[in-house]
Amino acid sequence: MNKHLHPIFDRFLQRADRERRLRQHSKVLWLTGLSGSGKSTIAQHLERRLYNEGYYPQALDGDNIRSGINNNLDFTDEGRRENIRRIAELSKLYVNSGIITINSFISPTTAIRQLAREIIGQDDFVEIYINAPLEVCEARDVKGLYKKARAGEIQGFTGVDAPYEPPEKPALEIRTDRQDLNDSVRVIFEFIEPIIKYRKS
Amino acid sequence: MNKHLHPIFDRFLQRADRERRLRQHSKVLWLTGLSGSGKSTIAQHLERRLYNEGYYPQALDGDNIRSGINNNLDFTDEGRRENIRRIAELSKLYVNSGIITINSFISPTTAIRQLAREIIGQDDFVEIYINAPLEVCEARDVKGLYKKARAGEIQGFTGVDAPYEPPEKPALEIRTDRQDLNDSVRVIFEFIEPIIKYRKS
Repeated sequence: MNKHLHPIFDRFLQRADRERRLRQHSKVLWLTGLSGSGKSTIAQHLERRLYNEGYYPQALDGDNIRSGINNNLDFTDEGRRENIRRIAELSKLYVNSGIITINSFISPTTAIRQLAREIIGQDDFVEIYINAPLEVCEARDVKGLYKKARAGEIQGFTGVDAPYEPPEKPALEIRTDRQDLNDSVRVIFEFIEPIIKYRKS
Repeated sequence: MNKHLHPIFDRFLQRADRERRLRQHSKVLWLTGLSGSGKSTIAQHLERRLYNEGYYPQALDGDNIRSGINNNLDFTDEGRRENIRRIAELSKLYVNSGIITINSFISPTTAIRQLAREIIGQDDFVEIYINAPLEVCEARDVKGLYKKARAGEIQGFTGVDAPYEPPEKPALEIRTDRQDLNDSVRVIFEFIEPIIKYRKS
């Protein structure tokens, strides 16, 4: 398989080598928004779309993070901050591995998203605001969490008794109450393709 | 670019899709051994070799882990256990992303390696013992850590005042005092290639 005549131990593997192999530029697509705004659903469909178009993405969300590497964190302020810090560090590893990550986390405050941006680095951090009015998200209530929060069974739930601070200048905003899933995924794909499309040979 | 006529939202992306795209079966190569045994050097060269042969690997070691996702852990027993737990969870994410990880961590006890094996899963965990006698590792002392440990400037240093429990049944053992770097890398490569070589179409 190896047809290289040059010494194999030329130099250590760099991100540029990985991006050349995968024919893409790696980025972290950071989807922020209320519970029920549609982040994870969009992320999963975007992941499939990117893969089908020849890219190599990885979606990260509560399902594969809170159940694994972050399974020892609580929902206090400090626990939430550490949750996002680890996710950002993990995303940085992935982006250095040449992979496009699609992160779906409420990440409710400007400060917590700023932390993620600083860890990942401005150039690799693409903030996408998945926006639907609270009433819409609450009416959807896919996981029944708003109901529990209103009943006082969950404390500190974003949008109910904890604030959500909308991004001031997101790279992109998607209104999921105004367009359907297919359109949302298409708009994000068309926005990011020029950014991730491989340009060097 | 997309020539697919089938609906793109057929199903969510699976590990099998990723392995097919990368033409490899993903595994975690877990290199254990004393400080100075040669783990990280072997890992970096093995990473380059695998890449040159068409595989897609990622080396994980203290340089990219302790400085990032695990930068808030100390060297107490609890800190070391959490260090390995997070590394194992991270490796599990990578292996589910279709990537071969090459992990270089002393991971000195049977219990701590068993924890990693359980998190990653028996089928994906390939234990490789990078073995050189303590005297050899201490004579190399690349980072000057043995000297500091002997002087009492570092406590709990594996091999000096903390135990190293050799793996009882490693998948592979490499004696770095008996063979050079090129041979060590070649032997590991030849051992793992049948395991990672893509077999399904």
